Amino acid sequence: MPSSTSSHVRTVADVGEFGIIADIVRGLSMPPAVAVGPGDDAAVYLINGSAVTSTDMLVEGVHFRRDWSSGTEIGRKAAAVNAADLEAMGATPLVMTVGLGVPGDLPVQWVHDFATGLRAEADAAGLTLVGGDTTGARDVTICVTAIGQTAGREPVLRNGARPGDVVAYRGRLGWAAAGLAALGRGFRSPRAAVDSQRVPLVPYGAGRQAALAGATAMLDVSDGLIADLGHIAEASGVRIDLRSDAFEVPDPVQAVAAATGKDPLGFVLTGGEDHALAATFPPGTVPSEWVEIGLVREAEENGTPRVTVDGGAWVADSGGWEHFRS
Amino acid sequence: MPSSTSSHVRTVADVGEFGIIADIVRGLSMPPAVAVGPGDDAAVYLINGSAVTSTDMLVEGVHFRRDWSSGTEIGRKAAAVNAADLEAMGATPLVMTVGLGVPGDLPVQWVHDFATGLRAEADAAGLTLVGGDTTGARDVTICVTAIGQTAGREPVLRNGARPGDVVAYRGRLGWAAAGLAALGRGFRSPRAAVDSQRVPLVPYGAGRQAALAGATAMLDVSDGLIADLGHIAEASGVRIDLRSDAFEVPDPVQAVAAATGKDPLGFVLTGGEDHALAATFPPGTVPSEWVEIGLVREAEENGTPRVTVDGGAWVADSGGWEHFRS
Repeated sequence: MPSSTSSHVRTVADVGEFGIIADIVRGLSMPPAVAVGPGDDAAVYLINGSAVTSTDMLVEGVHFRRDWSSGTEIGRKAAAVNAADLEAMGATPLVMTVGLGVPGDLPVQWVHDFATGLRAEADAAGLTLVGGDTTGARDVTICVTAIGQTAGREPVLRNGARPGDVVAYRGRLGWAAAGLAALGRGFRSPRAAVDSQRVPLVPYGAGRQAALAGATAMLDVSDGLIADLGHIAEASGVRIDLRSDAFEVPDPVQAVAAATGKDPLGFVLTGGEDHALAATFPPGTVPSEWVEIGLVREAEENGTPRVTVDGGAWVADSGGWEHFRS
Repeated sequence: MPSSTSSHVRTVADVGEFGIIADIVRGLSMPPAVAVGPGDDAAVYLINGSAVTSTDMLVEGVHFRRDWSSGTEIGRKAAAVNAADLEAMGATPLVMTVGLGVPGDLPVQWVHDFATGLRAEADAAGLTLVGGDTTGARDVTICVTAIGQTAGREPVLRNGARPGDVVAYRGRLGWAAAGLAALGRGFRSPRAAVDSQRVPLVPYGAGRQAALAGATAMLDVSDGLIADLGHIAEASGVRIDLRSDAFEVPDPVQAVAAATGKDPLGFVLTGGEDHALAATFPPGTVPSEWVEIGLVREAEENGTPRVTVDGGAWVADSGGWEHFRS
């Protein structure tokens, strides 16, 4: 089968800014809460109560690689990571905007696939794309802002954990990090782990569920469980102690750990990008879909870390992920 | 005077992601409408009525050059272009988020200057920075999302212009384009024009003024007056006819036109990036600060352009600015 020559591949430069926008918004329908969608200077929509807003920027070569993930997968990921932030507040997702920077030689098909994935994941999360901006850029750069509403509920912050609360999570832990480790070694399997690296499986609705159940603190696990629970512990002035035997290490993570000679529990405790939700609950209020993994304790002044595992410091390869530092 | 060596310049890589964020949000105070500012998974704030949202992405080498503009100026511009979009809806600006991609070798001082400018312009516009995201990137990349409220007013869209309405603008036209032309030839003057290219002087409050006066359509002039009024004419199904003698070409624009051998009115009619507001009003309702420049006419089917000048097509260097195309 002959491959198409480059002269046949329509690029971003061929169709221009307005052509790209037309493709991204084609066939979009607006729910009743949205009075003005894409096409004017700004979008207009009705908020019923307090508004909740999160922004995430994804950059090619930093957050994704086009040879590792399809445009559809990158679009889905861009919507998912923002929706997870709204879930982590206990909010109900409502609308989103996208800033998209693309090189002129990018195939139009990639933008089309990206928009398809972005809109599909937005649908799953309950978000409607209401506007954005496109521009030229050397690297594909995506900036999604998602806006939700508390719908009368109190937002669940990071500073509400109290000694005696139960720590629990819902979603996946360690899958994306295992997938990244596999991809980094040139493997495309285990498929479930690799897919998790490409698109996180966010437990949509779990944030509202936790808020309604009375969660005292919550966040989504983007940098790694220990690192992120550290934010709750710090903000709440408490210590969090996890039980290592509370975690069931999933098969794909076991497989990657065995192949790479790493500690499987390390992926679960320090792997980021799965966007599970982690929360603290008063005893006896943890919803059944959540996995109980530890307890909130009084903070200690003796140098004990904010987050411990079986009462002691977790010693492993890495304590989370931070940009700029290697 | 000895210049500092590179080993003395603290970079983004030195302080890391959390160091940058701490610098950007240091000393920020939140107004009563903001329940949760930076530091949690998402910001929480009260919207009083309908919400209005705009997103703009600015990329180094496309929208700005670091050798032409300071970090402070680029920060101010990033806030201004978004606030202008909210003004163009007749909305009251409220909060904003910023996505910031920066190379690891960028001096921390640049980020500090950027944040200073961003926050100063936000203050002027009525916006409070409530959150965002920072990441590594090859080129400095800025994505601001601004959120305002209609506060009970009807948003002013692009599709409401009616034959007989008066066309008017408030703000600057042609200054930024003249500044760009000067900078492009290696000049740093006329200073007023060059400054306008670096930071647009948005007429804050003019959007609400126009909405309260009964404006039927409005937008901010980002791509050039004729190009942008074309969007109103198209959306409203009308023609717009401008009077060339209604424009007073400002001195800095005259100076650049003389130095570059270009038509001074061309800068005014087709120059972008000044973010003036242009609107249509029922006769007799134009606020006194606005400059009346033409009339809305019935659309014609005989090939007459959507926007005419003295009844005919405007023939000049360029009809506006579009990314990707040259």
